[in-house]
Formats: sequence, structure tokens, C-alpha cells
Amino acid sequence: MGEAVKDVFFINGNSTQANWFEEEVDDDLKICYSLNSVLHQGTSKYQDIALLDTKHFGKALLIDGKMQSSEMDEFIYHECLIHPALLCHPKPKTVFIMGGGEGSAAREALKHKALQRVVMCDIDEEVVDFCRRHLTANREAFANEKLCLIINDAKEELLKRGNEEKYDIIVGDLADPMEGGPCYQLYTKSFYEAVLKPKLHCHGIFVTQAGPAGVLTHKEVFSSIYNTLKHVFKYVIAYTAHVPSFVDTWGWVMASDEPFVLNAQLMNKRIGERINGELLYLNGESLVSSATLNKCVRRSLLEETHVYTEENARFIHGHGRAC
Amino acid sequence: MGEAVKDVFFINGNSTQANWFEEEVDDDLKICYSLNSVLHQGTSKYQDIALLDTKHFGKALLIDGKMQSSEMDEFIYHECLIHPALLCHPKPKTVFIMGGGEGSAAREALKHKALQRVVMCDIDEEVVDFCRRHLTANREAFANEKLCLIINDAKEELLKRGNEEKYDIIVGDLADPMEGGPCYQLYTKSFYEAVLKPKLHCHGIFVTQAGPAGVLTHKEVFSSIYNTLKHVFKYVIAYTAHVPSFVDTWGWVMASDEPFVLNAQLMNKRIGERINGELLYLNGESLVSSATLNKCVRRSLLEETHVYTEENARFIHGHGRAC
Amino acid sequence: MGEAVKDVFFINGNSTQANWFEEEVDDDLKICYSLNSVLHQGTSKYQDIALLDTKHFGKALLIDGKMQSSEMDEFIYHECLIHPALLCHPKPKTVFIMGGGEGSAAREALKHKALQRVVMCDIDEEVVDFCRRHLTANREAFANEKLCLIINDAKEELLKRGNEEKYDIIVGDLADPMEGGPCYQLYTKSFYEAVLKPKLHCHGIFVTQAGPAGVLTHKEVFSSIYNTLKHVFKYVIAYTAHVPSFVDTWGWVMASDEPFVLNAQLMNKRIGERINGELLYLNGESLVSSATLNKCVRRSLLEETHVYTEENARFIHGHGRAC
Amino acid sequence: MGEAVKDVFFINGNSTQANWFEEEVDDDLKICYSLNSVLHQGTSKYQDIALLDTKHFGKALLIDGKMQSSEMDEFIYHECLIHPALLCHPKPKTVFIMGGGEGSAAREALKHKALQRVVMCDIDEEVVDFCRRHLTANREAFANEKLCLIINDAKEELLKRGNEEKYDIIVGDLADPMEGGPCYQLYTKSFYEAVLKPKLHCHGIFVTQAGPAGVLTHKEVFSSIYNTLKHVFKYVIAYTAHVPSFVDTWGWVMASDEPFVLNAQLMNKRIGERINGELLYLNGESLVSSATLNKCVRRSLLEETHVYTEENARFIHGHGRAC
Repeated sequence: MGEAVKDVFFINGNSTQANWFEEEVDDDLKICYSLNSVLHQGTSKYQDIALLDTKHFGKALLIDGKMQSSEMDEFIYHECLIHPALLCHPKPKTVFIMGGGEGSAAREALKHKALQRVVMCDIDEEVVDFCRRHLTANREAFANEKLCLIINDAKEELLKRGNEEKYDIIVGDLADPMEGGPCYQLYTKSFYEAVLKPKLHCHGIFVTQAGPAGVLTHKEVFSSIYNTLKHVFKYVIAYTAHVPSFVDTWGWVMASDEPFVLNAQLMNKRIGERINGELLYLNGESLVSSATLNKCVRRSLLEETHVYTEENARFIHGHGRAC
Repeated sequence: MGEAVKDVFFINGNSTQANWFEEEVDDDLKICYSLNSVLHQGTSKYQDIALLDTKHFGKALLIDGKMQSSEMDEFIYHECLIHPALLCHPKPKTVFIMGGGEGSAAREALKHKALQRVVMCDIDEEVVDFCRRHLTANREAFANEKLCLIINDAKEELLKRGNEEKYDIIVGDLADPMEGGPCYQLYTKSFYEAVLKPKLHCHGIFVTQAGPAGVLTHKEVFSSIYNTLKHVFKYVIAYTAHVPSFVDTWGWVMASDEPFVLNAQLMNKRIGERINGELLYLNGESLVSSATLNKCVRRSLLEETHVYTEENARFIHGHGRAC
Repeated sequence: MGEAVKDVFFINGNSTQANWFEEEVDDDLKICYSLNSVLHQGTSKYQDIALLDTKHFGKALLIDGKMQSSEMDEFIYHECLIHPALLCHPKPKTVFIMGGGEGSAAREALKHKALQRVVMCDIDEEVVDFCRRHLTANREAFANEKLCLIINDAKEELLKRGNEEKYDIIVGDLADPMEGGPCYQLYTKSFYEAVLKPKLHCHGIFVTQAGPAGVLTHKEVFSSIYNTLKHVFKYVIAYTAHVPSFVDTWGWVMASDEPFVLNAQLMNKRIGERINGELLYLNGESLVSSATLNKCVRRSLLEETHVYTEENARFIHGHGRAC
Repeated sequence: MGEAVKDVFFINGNSTQANWFEEEVDDDLKICYSLNSVLHQGTSKYQDIALLDTKHFGKALLIDGKMQSSEMDEFIYHECLIHPALLCHPKPKTVFIMGGGEGSAAREALKHKALQRVVMCDIDEEVVDFCRRHLTANREAFANEKLCLIINDAKEELLKRGNEEKYDIIVGDLADPMEGGPCYQLYTKSFYEAVLKPKLHCHGIFVTQAGPAGVLTHKEVFSSIYNTLKHVFKYVIAYTAHVPSFVDTWGWVMASDEPFVLNAQLMNKRIGERINGELLYLNGESLVSSATLNKCVRRSLLEETHVYTEENARFIHGHGRAC
């Protein structure tokens, strides 16, 4: 964590001068955004948390000095994380979110009228409480009676529940696999095979955030996550979107043993039928387009041979959060 | 120009310590990348020029402290600038590039085997000379006998040539419309109508870079350029791609009085038939996908009412270069 | 009814010489096919029935001297009648067939594993009995416990059932609207609006055979049926297929208040998931293609202004059967 | 030739009574259409010719008692024969028609403004003269100065011309391969390879009528012609349309060493740009749809193993004309 980060976390109250917050995106790349004020900060058993009021991105949630989501563009990340899988499923009723303590993933899922239950399982109670108190956009979601909030490690929780309770959709809203962090275990072939897949109903779909997917960064973890899932599921689709506050194009991967029908007209029809309110980023056309990767990234994904295992993980200077 | 920029331009020779170069992307957003060294710097009648060796983006060309293109990702910008229009045209033979002094636009155009002539008209002789000497990737292009290099203001040159000499493709590789810069004149309805369009052959296509096109930035100039061209041409297509070194998704607009056939199979066929060597970023599928905008940007483009005129221009904190 | 027809219906037993059966397709067009033998014939309160063994079409069912269906190609007509609507519906459970006494429509519907009930309502008990006894291909369907067979006029039956019992799919497998026949009442706007539509569930689809749809014959009734349904439902799709034993291209129209997603991939997926056994004529691609009409027929459909009412019906020299 | 045929050919002048003309479509299938009158008849060295005025199809040209084309629907056959290949070619300038003495194929080709030359090579001078005199719809085409009419056997003519004169499009408008007729030689692999293909320019396309393509008839010759061409060209496309006066769905096959781009939008664009006047049957959408075969025919084509050779031909009860 650089100097600027410390400034933020140790200054009490709002600063009047033009503060800049500096975030290390990579070893050799930093982004600086000017702040109106530091709204809230806290620490949990696992992580540092802050809510900044930035000039460029609006309110921004940071964990351990890393941008988690910003008011101005978090809808891109969360619409892409949640809706493609739910829209591709013929009739989703239950969703299990691994991580997602911020509440935005649950908020997007709960827009699907026919959902009966959304289980959200995050390890960090302080982060969840912080977000529940401070992120006004997610208040309704936290209060929704269909939401079942659990504080636990996602893997342990899935194991504990046994194979009788299955889900139509499982969502991985976890930190990137980072060295030293335990989270990478939730990206391994053995976890997918032995723990996660048995918890999916027939027709079930797993979707996970999959790290940076830009032309310069997609080989860090995106291509490996894609390839790992291809070893576990019959059908795997990777898609991407540029998220300005992440200073990169981001990737997601969804996987199923049933083929996907990624058709714009069908997706538009289902958006109209299933979703309360309007989406801001995705419509049928852009959803299909987001899964049509540029030649450079597409080739890397097809040529990737690395598979995540406990012994052979890949790590990134990641957008982190505890698992 | 900020402090860091001065550091770069006034330090003679290569620095041995870990330097960071800081670029203002916007008033409230900066990007910093670490440098191996400053390879070359110079000044022209119009602008400051530098060639940096950065750790993240490889060699990077900067003009007035703004990233122009980097070794690692300039192929994205230049493939998107040149190939869609050339591939949509039934049989392009002549290209006129406004600006483009760096040489990369010409390099991409010259990959089209059937082209007979590429005219490149840049106002800044020193920039052209600097790039010809230092950008090794473009050396062949500068030496190609089909290339006709002219040092002049693009508008004056087009006016001077009269309406007998017409082109199949005209390319706008100009700086963004920035306050104080004269370049914005080359983005106005009257320029397009009175000067540029008469220089296009029947079936001719005009394409221009059109500034930042991210979810947070596309209303700065992208939507206006799109709307302005809709007032001048019958068919207008906007498309985008994330360019990491521009710290944003970028936009281009192409326009014609003939309808476009943006079909992946056709584009792939033409790539195979017409182009020497391989493209890195574009194939038929990704070209079509790049023209399928997300819902948010698409809506803004359709709702935009601003038209660029001499009296009513929009400016940005742009990626600048003289016109 | 011409001479040849009489020969068939009045000869007792099988003929040993090379008989030709002659059918009036239109006033000025006849088709003659050679017979191996007359297998069965009978008369009902409403109609003459015969089962011929033809050399070209295999066994052929005739009613009042008109080809109803032939062993060699009836799968075209019945697959097209049944599967598009069932495949376009998100989750069809109940089907009501108006007419269809031959049993082939029910047979195709019952291939959909998830269907719970197929009601078939034909007015002519003798025809139904004749087909049940003699059409071996439909025996299983007649014996299927999901099939509910009712002898009644379809309109009366629908009225009798009240608006509590609704269906996901209603199928019109009726004779063409012919002068003098009462069947044309089941093609009128008022019947569709007042009787049929209220019996459809939300997301329900109505599909009807719609007469000849060839380049020379589609204006007889096809375009009118299409246009009439456009006055009653929000979304209407016309599609066609050449049926050799009908000596013409045939038409069907399906209609709903929900948009259709006619996507080849989706249709193929649903065929795989929902249907027992294999289809012979339709796959996703040909289903979409059958709904892409040639320019000539498409134009007539779009320009048609006639609407079927009780006072203003159109009749054809039709492929008849009682209603 | 049956009795009815003789009636037609031996009656002088117009008949006043309701005559029916009877045509053998197959051994076990006949079609009869009523006549207003026999307009003209004649005989050539090779064939009997007649022009009938029918009630159902309008004026109809018969050769050897077989329907060649009728006023009411010949546009279907001839648009399908000519336009797909010409529209798929990037820039067709020259066309060679084998057969086509009726003049309709040439008429359609000459609608393409940019064509420079259409060579039509028919063996039967009397048929050509008969059609030139009596088919008013083709008079302009016969008089067009771009048309070069040659009376010769197509194979001999192609051989005679040597390999310097090449064509962009070669069209096979020949009789079906029938036993006893010499025409089948123009459907063999060796003819395609040794004689025809060397006469095609780079990007050249060969298209041929390919006989009946209905569900009951496509294995007679259609699937074999398709398979034979797959042994000679890299890319082969089969397509069909129902032609009422042929009492069947008809087939055509086009073949090239360059991939086809069968895209509706592109075809519509080219129709708008290249063709004088309007097409009646084809637009971009229906052209693509006509090449999307039903499952039954598609499967037969893919599974066909027969290849036409001189020793191993397949014959049909064909729609005949001399070669």
C-alpha cells in the first residue's frame, strides 16, 4: 500500500484541500483520482475498508486500498456478473452468491421477479455491515425477505449444506486469486468439480468474475479461469466489459453442462418478461457482443493450457478482498 | 502540463532511478506509469514530443504530455481506425489521411494489397520526422512508394486539390477537438459538408477517430461527432474498443451515403483476400461486435442533439496533437 | 367430384388393373396418381372417406375426394402444424386441437415430453374411428392417456368449457374455408377474438393451418388468415413448406400476444430437450427458414387488407373436411 | 408421350372446347391443366415444341410434352438460376450460359448493369428461333447487344474456345440428366473438372439447375449433382424453391473455389446497386432462406456418396430438352 493510501486511511474527517487518492493497479501502473472527501473508513478482522467521495467516479468503496466499486460505474460490473447467467437459464429460482458482501450482486439478482431465494455467503461480517449501513443503493436488497445472508467461508458453507440443497445459479463474486490470499482455492478445478458443481441443479449455471481481461492483462488469470472451467463443464462462455474505475476491461466466465443460447432477441424478451425495472448497461445485443471477444483475447483463451489447481495457481496484483 | 511532465521533458538523457510519468487523463484523474528511460524528446513549431520507454506499455509516443500511442497496444487504435472502413468499401483504391503523422495509420492502410495510393497530410513536419526516425515499426510504411506524404493543414490541402481528385476513403486521425486548438474545425458539419464530402468518390467512406467512448466519457465528444455526421451522411456507424494506454474505451465513427454491410463472414472473407499479413485485434466477429454498443452508450448516441458547428463546438481535455 | 373419384368410391374391393385416381386441385388443375389398391372406404354423416394405396405417395387418406395426408409426406404438414408453436412457447403444458381427427396432430404434440394434456375436438366420429382403426402410425397416440378425445364442434366445445379452462397452445387443424362448408366460421375475426383468444393462457399461442401458400395461390386464403390474425394478436408469424401430395406449398400462421423468438439455436436446444425421438422435416434452421417467405408472398401478406368476418369470407376449392 | 400430348401436337389451330393437357411428371404421377388454346407448335431436329395458353399457368412453353416454363411462375426458376451466383460474385463481368435457348436466363443476367457480355450457347436453333419469335418477355434480351448467341453443343463450344477466354459465371440451364439423352455428360465430374472449371476466372462461380428437390424427389439427381460438385469445387451451396408449374420444389447448386458470403443484408445491398428494375421472387432474406434446406433434404445431401461419371450416371423422368 503506497503513501497516498495511508493518507486516506489515517486522516480523520474530511479534508478541504484537493486530495488525490492513488491506487496501484499494477507494479508499474498507478491511477490517481481526486477526492471530495473520505466519507467512512473502518477495519475488519480481514481487511481495511473505506468509502471515498471521488470527483471522477462518485462514491467509491475501497477494500485494502483497492477499488471495489464506484457509484458511477458499478452497474457495469454487477449487471455483467448477474444477468447473463440468470437470463440464459430457462427458469432460475435460486441463486447462491459466494462473496458479494457489498450487496450489489444480490440487488441485481433480486430484480428477477421469479427468483424465490438468494443466498449470499460472505466471510467478512464487518464489510457486510459497513456496506449495509453506507451503500444506500443496496438497502432495499439487504432488507428483501428473499435474501438469506450468511457469514461464512463459501466453500465451507457449500460443503456443510450437503448435496440435497441445490441452486439454479451459483455466482462467484470473490476477490481475484492473489498470492497469500486464501481465495485462490475457490478458483481451482478440484473445488469446481468436487464442491461447486454437485450443488447445481440440472440446467444450472455457474458464473464467476474472472479478473482483468484487457489486451495487456487477460493472461494474468482470465484465460486460466476460462480454461479451468472448460475442464469441468461442457459449455463455457467468456465475456468482457470495460469498467472505467477498474482501469481495465473486465472478464466473467459462465459455465454449464447445458448449451447456452446467446441470442439477442431471446435475451431482450427475457429481460422484458423477467426483470423489474430497467437495466442500464446490458440489452440483448450488447450481451451477445460482450461475449464476442477481440481476436487477440479470443486466441489466448483458446490456446491457454494452464489449469488452476491447489499446487499450480496463478496470482495477480489483484482487486482484492478476503474470501 | 503538470510537474511530472516537466520532469520528463527537461531531463536530458536516461534516468537510472525508478521514474514515474504522470499524465492527466482528466481534471480529476491521472495515470502514472513507471519508466525505464526517456528515449528521445524534441519540440516542434506546434508541440512537444517524447518517446518514453515505459514498463507497462513498452515504448510510448507522447505529444504535449499526452499518450499518443504505445508499442503494446497501438495496434488496437490503428486497426480500428483503418480497417473497418476499408473492409466495408467494395473496392478501395485511394485513401486520404488527415493527420496521422505518426505513420501507423498509413502502415495499416498499406496492408491492403489493392490500394494504389495513400495520401497522408499532417501539419507538423517535426513530428513526422521524429516518428519516421524513431518508430521502427513504421519505417517500411514511410518508405512505401504508394505513400504520398504532404506537410499541410488537411483542410487547406483538401480545398487546394479541387473536386477532381477524389478518394475512396478519407480518414480523420486528428487530435480530439480541444479548446484553443484549431483542430475542432475539422469536426464541424460545415467542414464535412462543404470540404470533405465532395472529395469522396461514389461509395466513398469517411472514418474518424471520435474521442473517449467509455460509459463515463462518451458524451464529451463521441456522441456529438456521431450526431454531426448523421446530419451529413445517410449511413453512420459508431464503434468502440478499449485502449489500455488511453485509460478508456475509445470511439470511431464511419459514414457514407451507401449502406454498410457489417457481416462477420464477409469481413473475414475480405480480410483473407485483401490484407497482407495478419491482423491482431480485429476479425469479422469482433468488428461486428465493436459496432454493437452497450445500452448506455447506444442510448446517448441516439438521443444526442448537439451538432458541431464553428460557433457551437464541444471540447475535451483531449488526447491532443496539432491539426 | 370427377369421374375418377366416383370410380374409387363405388368400386368394391381392390382393383387389379392400373387405376389412376384423379383429384381436382383447382378448377383448371388436376393431379392423377396411380393406385395399387383401394384399402378402405366409408361414409360418415358429413363426409366420404377413403384410404388408398398409391404408388407415388404410399397410403393416402382422402376425404370427399381430397387428399388429406399421405404416408410419404404427411410428416411435413403435421410437424409444421405442431412443433413451431410448441417450441416457441416457454413451457407448454396443455394443447387444444380443433379438428385433427386423423390423429397425426395429436401424435406430434405428444412427442413433447412435458405436455400434460392434449384435447382433440373433432366433429366427425366416423372419421375419427376410421383413422383410429386404419392409420397404424397414430395408434399409440390414440391410446395415449394424456389424449382427451371429444366429438363436438370446436366452437361449441370452447364456448361450453367457459373461460376457466385455458390452454397454452390452441391448434387449428381444420378444413380450408370453403363455400357452403360451416368451417369458415372458425377463421373469422370474431371467433378468434370472442371465443378462441380468451381460452389462451398468458404466453399462449394459437396456430392454424392456413391453406395454399404458393406463389400462384397464396392470395386465396393464406394472406387473409394472416391479416385477420394480425387484427387479433400482437405478434403473428406466417410460415410455409412445400407438401408434395398437396401439389403446392402450404401455409401456417401462428399468433400470440407475446413476441416470438425464432432463433435456430434456441429451437434446436428445445428440440433436444423437449421432444421424444427425432423430427424428420424441421430443425432449428429450417424452422427459421420456413418463416422467411419469398419476396412475392411476403409482399402480398403485408399488403393484404381483407379480414375474415361472417359476412365477408373468402373461400377456396379447398382441401376439405367438415368442421 | 401420352395421348393428351399427341392431341396437342397434332391439332392445328385453337380448340374451342375445354381441352385438358396431361403431363407425366413421373411414372405414377400426372398433372392435367385446362387450356384456352394451343398458340404455336413446331418441331426441331431434336425436339417437339409447343406454346400453350393454359388457364392455370398462363402461356406455357413445352418441349417434348414437358413443361419448360410458364408465364405465371417462370420468374421463380430463372431468378433462382441466375441471381444468387451473380450476387455472390464480387464483380461479375462475363457470363456463359450452357443451354438457356428460351432466353429467360439471359434476360435475368442482363438485368445486371455492370455485365459486359453474356454468351448463350444452345444446341437447338429451332427452339431458339421459336422462343425469340413467340416469347415476348424475352425480346429485349434477344436484341441486347451484350448478348452473344451461339448454336452449338456447350461442351464443344467450351473446348473450342481454349483456356484464354474465361468467364466470371458459368450457368447450366440444361435438361435434367435423362436416360438416352446426351445431356447427362454435362453433369459429370470429368466434364466439370476438365472442361468447365478451367474456363472460370479466379473468383468464378458455376451454377446449375439441379432437378427436383422435393422431399420425395431430391435423391433422383439433386443430391448427386451436389455431391459431384463437392468433389470438384471447394465451396458448394444447394438451394431450392417451389415452382408450381413443375409440380415440385426445384433445386440449384452453385460452386466456387472461393467461399460464399450468403448474407441477407449484403445481397439486398447488391440487388439495389447492381440490378436494373426489381426482382419478384428473391430478396436477400429469401435468398438466404432458400439455401437453408429442410432437415430431410439436407441430411440426404450430406450423406450422398454417388458421383456422376460417364459410366455411372443417374437418370430421371426428367424435364427434358436436348443438350
